[in-house]
Amino acid sequence: MENINVVLLAGGDSSRLWPLGDKNLITFVGKPLIYHTVAKLSRWGFKKFIIITNKDNRHTIEKWMSVFSSIDVTFVDQINRKGMAGAVLSVKDIVAGKPILVIGPSDVYEDILFLKFQKMAKKEYQADGIISGITMETYFPGGYLEILKDEVKGLREKPSPKKLPSNIVTFVFDYFKDSTLLIQKIEKIKEDNDDVYEQAIDGMVKDGLRLKFLHYNGFWGYLKYPWHVLNLSAYFLNQLENKTSNNVQISESAVITGKVYLDSNVRILENAKIIGPSYIGKGTVIGNNVLVRESEIGESCVVGNGTEIARSHIGNNCWFHTNYVGDSVISDNVSMGSGTVLANFRLDEGIINSKIRNEKIQTDKVKLGAVIGDNVRIGVNSSIMPGVKVGKYSLIGAGVVLNKDLEDKKYCLLSKQEYVIRDNLQKTFSSTRKRERNSLKFL
Amino acid sequence: MENINVVLLAGGDSSRLWPLGDKNLITFVGKPLIYHTVAKLSRWGFKKFIIITNKDNRHTIEKWMSVFSSIDVTFVDQINRKGMAGAVLSVKDIVAGKPILVIGPSDVYEDILFLKFQKMAKKEYQADGIISGITMETYFPGGYLEILKDEVKGLREKPSPKKLPSNIVTFVFDYFKDSTLLIQKIEKIKEDNDDVYEQAIDGMVKDGLRLKFLHYNGFWGYLKYPWHVLNLSAYFLNQLENKTSNNVQISESAVITGKVYLDSNVRILENAKIIGPSYIGKGTVIGNNVLVRESEIGESCVVGNGTEIARSHIGNNCWFHTNYVGDSVISDNVSMGSGTVLANFRLDEGIINSKIRNEKIQTDKVKLGAVIGDNVRIGVNSSIMPGVKVGKYSLIGAGVVLNKDLEDKKYCLLSKQEYVIRDNLQKTFSSTRKRERNSLKFL
Amino acid sequence: MENINVVLLAGGDSSRLWPLGDKNLITFVGKPLIYHTVAKLSRWGFKKFIIITNKDNRHTIEKWMSVFSSIDVTFVDQINRKGMAGAVLSVKDIVAGKPILVIGPSDVYEDILFLKFQKMAKKEYQADGIISGITMETYFPGGYLEILKDEVKGLREKPSPKKLPSNIVTFVFDYFKDSTLLIQKIEKIKEDNDDVYEQAIDGMVKDGLRLKFLHYNGFWGYLKYPWHVLNLSAYFLNQLENKTSNNVQISESAVITGKVYLDSNVRILENAKIIGPSYIGKGTVIGNNVLVRESEIGESCVVGNGTEIARSHIGNNCWFHTNYVGDSVISDNVSMGSGTVLANFRLDEGIINSKIRNEKIQTDKVKLGAVIGDNVRIGVNSSIMPGVKVGKYSLIGAGVVLNKDLEDKKYCLLSKQEYVIRDNLQKTFSSTRKRERNSLKFL
Repeated sequence: MENINVVLLAGGDSSRLWPLGDKNLITFVGKPLIYHTVAKLSRWGFKKFIIITNKDNRHTIEKWMSVFSSIDVTFVDQINRKGMAGAVLSVKDIVAGKPILVIGPSDVYEDILFLKFQKMAKKEYQADGIISGITMETYFPGGYLEILKDEVKGLREKPSPKKLPSNIVTFVFDYFKDSTLLIQKIEKIKEDNDDVYEQAIDGMVKDGLRLKFLHYNGFWGYLKYPWHVLNLSAYFLNQLENKTSNNVQISESAVITGKVYLDSNVRILENAKIIGPSYIGKGTVIGNNVLVRESEIGESCVVGNGTEIARSHIGNNCWFHTNYVGDSVISDNVSMGSGTVLANFRLDEGIINSKIRNEKIQTDKVKLGAVIGDNVRIGVNSSIMPGVKVGKYSLIGAGVVLNKDLEDKKYCLLSKQEYVIRDNLQKTFSSTRKRERNSLKFL
Repeated sequence: MENINVVLLAGGDSSRLWPLGDKNLITFVGKPLIYHTVAKLSRWGFKKFIIITNKDNRHTIEKWMSVFSSIDVTFVDQINRKGMAGAVLSVKDIVAGKPILVIGPSDVYEDILFLKFQKMAKKEYQADGIISGITMETYFPGGYLEILKDEVKGLREKPSPKKLPSNIVTFVFDYFKDSTLLIQKIEKIKEDNDDVYEQAIDGMVKDGLRLKFLHYNGFWGYLKYPWHVLNLSAYFLNQLENKTSNNVQISESAVITGKVYLDSNVRILENAKIIGPSYIGKGTVIGNNVLVRESEIGESCVVGNGTEIARSHIGNNCWFHTNYVGDSVISDNVSMGSGTVLANFRLDEGIINSKIRNEKIQTDKVKLGAVIGDNVRIGVNSSIMPGVKVGKYSLIGAGVVLNKDLEDKKYCLLSKQEYVIRDNLQKTFSSTRKRERNSLKFL
Repeated sequence: MENINVVLLAGGDSSRLWPLGDKNLITFVGKPLIYHTVAKLSRWGFKKFIIITNKDNRHTIEKWMSVFSSIDVTFVDQINRKGMAGAVLSVKDIVAGKPILVIGPSDVYEDILFLKFQKMAKKEYQADGIISGITMETYFPGGYLEILKDEVKGLREKPSPKKLPSNIVTFVFDYFKDSTLLIQKIEKIKEDNDDVYEQAIDGMVKDGLRLKFLHYNGFWGYLKYPWHVLNLSAYFLNQLENKTSNNVQISESAVITGKVYLDSNVRILENAKIIGPSYIGKGTVIGNNVLVRESEIGESCVVGNGTEIARSHIGNNCWFHTNYVGDSVISDNVSMGSGTVLANFRLDEGIINSKIRNEKIQTDKVKLGAVIGDNVRIGVNSSIMPGVKVGKYSLIGAGVVLNKDLEDKKYCLLSKQEYVIRDNLQKTFSSTRKRERNSLKFL
């Protein structure tokens, strides 16, 4: 594997993930996604990495890559054409004539993918490349492969659900023995569409080049829409081992069950309960009577008294206080007032919808809460409806029932609640409460 | 007692109990009311039962009666005229010439009633029957007895509160030595009013028949209005003994005080507290930090984290989540979102009213929550006002403050909350929270 | 000290403290403020007290003063002119020719003030009096002293912030060797302004009388605005020692940390947590899962299940139930429904404002909840915004988000929530919940 150039496509925009930020930098169990990807590839034996970044994420990615001592990483800003094709063109000179493995760094796979790849790469030394694909039970808006025996015979991007060439969808884990074959093909395509990369592969096989098919059947985690963060989160949580780091304080009455990773300086107060798999980041405080179930919570958070967080992905520096947060994705530096609830279940128990770029998308989820961007503040006793997304730096007032997305940098508040104020003529109060108090049964 | 035909009037409609269903089938401590009634009568030594049913409840009642092995039960659908008179006419042929004891199966009495009845039935073998009555301190919309010494001299249905013949109200526990005497009298009355049964008794004594008066002074539980379920529930809970059934799991930090009946497969999680008398049905989960006080909860419920249920009657398959449920009656398959509250106390601490068939009724209660029918779903952070009733298969959206009854099969939601959305010009946040966090005192 | 007449000015009105009552009678750690003041002065060795009262507070103050056995107290109703000058004039005959120490009994100081005073009073036997003052870092709307060396050379009430004679503000702890000198000066001023007392002092020094300056630099607690109660409360709480009085019941699972004073008959239920310094009054019940942090709670309160009270001052006979009460001042006989929250933090994290006599005042606080008068009732799931004040005998309905002050004796409720009711066509429910239930992970 050592001579293969791993080309990581991290330069794209993540606008479909709004209000979340760059998909490569979304943190899972304490580290950004691209870190996990490179760590795994490094463990698999790859040594040479070329990461195509953009001006916004390059600095952060460089910082995280500096953690790895045994690999060689080159950073290239995506300057050419758009999409994956543009990303590949950006590294043209560096990889000219060399073998490349093109990878989308926000995808997550299991080791079985590498074992299959390794075996094929050794055996199929005569083929021109290897294209990976996975069987999808239901329609997926991606590239579908046409396959004959174990060779790819075509690739069609987002075909009509009625005219699928197969039920095999390509995810980007594509090996080319000589990068120049791919790059020349890309350069011949003049349009500047999103699917030039797929067209190029389709053109390569139509030209008679031999691309072998790698049939993967393990877990495939991807970040097409923001709620997919929950799928990846569940995957990473399941990889965790129990760990109690340095200087963790756990009250005697707290309960921890299942696999729970407690990072350094975590404090868990009286009667809190954490059900694994869960991850609690550095310095986070899990308050009294808090219930955390199968969730990851970032560092320096305060999860205050009586809050419940279930199956959610919480960033750093977040504050909660008597909240219910179910099946939600919450970014950094978010706080909620007491009594605010992120609803995660429709009254009619149907599949939850969400809008992406003004299009109503049916998520695959019956339980889904909110997706909340960085630096959001929510007042007390507010309710956010399932599937609603809240933009970065927005504020939501007390008592609001938010049932649609809120853009970045907005302030949403009850304009004027229609209440009446009239005289209260009753000036004395009956002794009911005293009677009630005396009859309280052990309270 | 063995030769007396107990005639149970279970064929009437229960529309005044809306949104609850058939009064005979309302479940108390795990079994329907009619089961409790027959069990008690059977224990008292009665052997022959004739149950007048209707097409909706017959099947279920038959099923429950099959549990009893030592009694003989005949089922008759109420086909004739309406009311109790119609019910009695339905069994005319079966009981012709025989002694009958007419009983409303949704009434609940204590054993002292039977002891008195048994004594009188032996002693008064020459009388034509025994009519039971109870002293009422305040006006009750029922049949009032005119009594001379120990004999009934008249019966007037719902007399004006100003012209009561006595303060003795009849409840239906009436013995007739020969059913034909009653039935002939009923048949002579041509109108088809609700009070034909009472008219017939009044006619019998006016004709010179001797009906002895049984003066009962124990507990009388009845189901005239839906909130009366709470009175019966309290009665049945008080009869319970402590019991922990098979396969019950109780966390070490849970607290159980008073008489609490835990049915099989109940699970009680950390720091839950149950104050007796309470009943928890099969397979129900009492979650973390839940407080149950003097309540009965049906089977397969999930009482989630931080919920409090006080003095309430909860059906099967209900879900709660950080709710407060006080003095409420909740049917089967109801769920509530986090933060929803059933208010049970007026701000002015007055008697709580409720509408029955469009008439405002003053309940006898200062504390009364909601009455909720089957299959209701309530969203998060909603508030239901005291005495409000919610119809079957209805949905209530998030944040609603419901202050009047909602019919069956309705969806009530905030049409559009009047909120404004404006730009949030503040782009950075002060370090207030960091300062606050550092100054937190043990949290 | 024994021959000094301490003149306590307790006759003023406390209207700026609305909706709180008479400032002298606000209770701290179980006793009214004037009690604390006299107790401290008595401990310092003063023996003769003249308290200027008004018709509303005289009776209560007399009652509380009767507790002290070793001091001599004279009560005088304020009948003359208004303000402090009027108060001093009210005692003219009693103190004629005698030394007086004029004190505002709602101010709180530390012992260092007395030690300084004692020293000066001995040394400066030739001066005509001693005026105390404190350095203020920011502008304070009070009287500013002009000082030369250690003598007061002038006193200007509320000067323009741009023309301050110094940064020394006078608080009322003023000694006059002969009261007549002050009283004659007051009598010469004909206007009836609020600042006649200050004018008189200014006039005295302008006339050549020698008033020495006592420079105090300890804690000064004052009650200008209602939220200042929280400052005094924090002061008194910090003076407390740990104490568990007679007949206190504390559950084994309750946690008490820091200095906590539990008065007699307090009951602390399971899993409650009290973080000191805190004070819990007689007979108060701290319910299950309640969290009290650095607060004082009066007597006969019921702090119900799951409530959190942080840094607040709570009167007697209050009821809470799953509430969050932060940085708030709550008077006697107040109750809140389940889910009601007193918000204490602005979304923009700014300084909290509050209106006093229709003027917007910037409090000095980033965290401030509500100020609530006596006999208020708040419904369920209501939200009171930071800095809002609620008048005595007022009611607030369920679900209200109150963002401005509510006068005394008002009833504020949602007029009609704009909800729609439509048919719910979905008649059956999917088995989602059953599936969810079965997949619950230890709940």
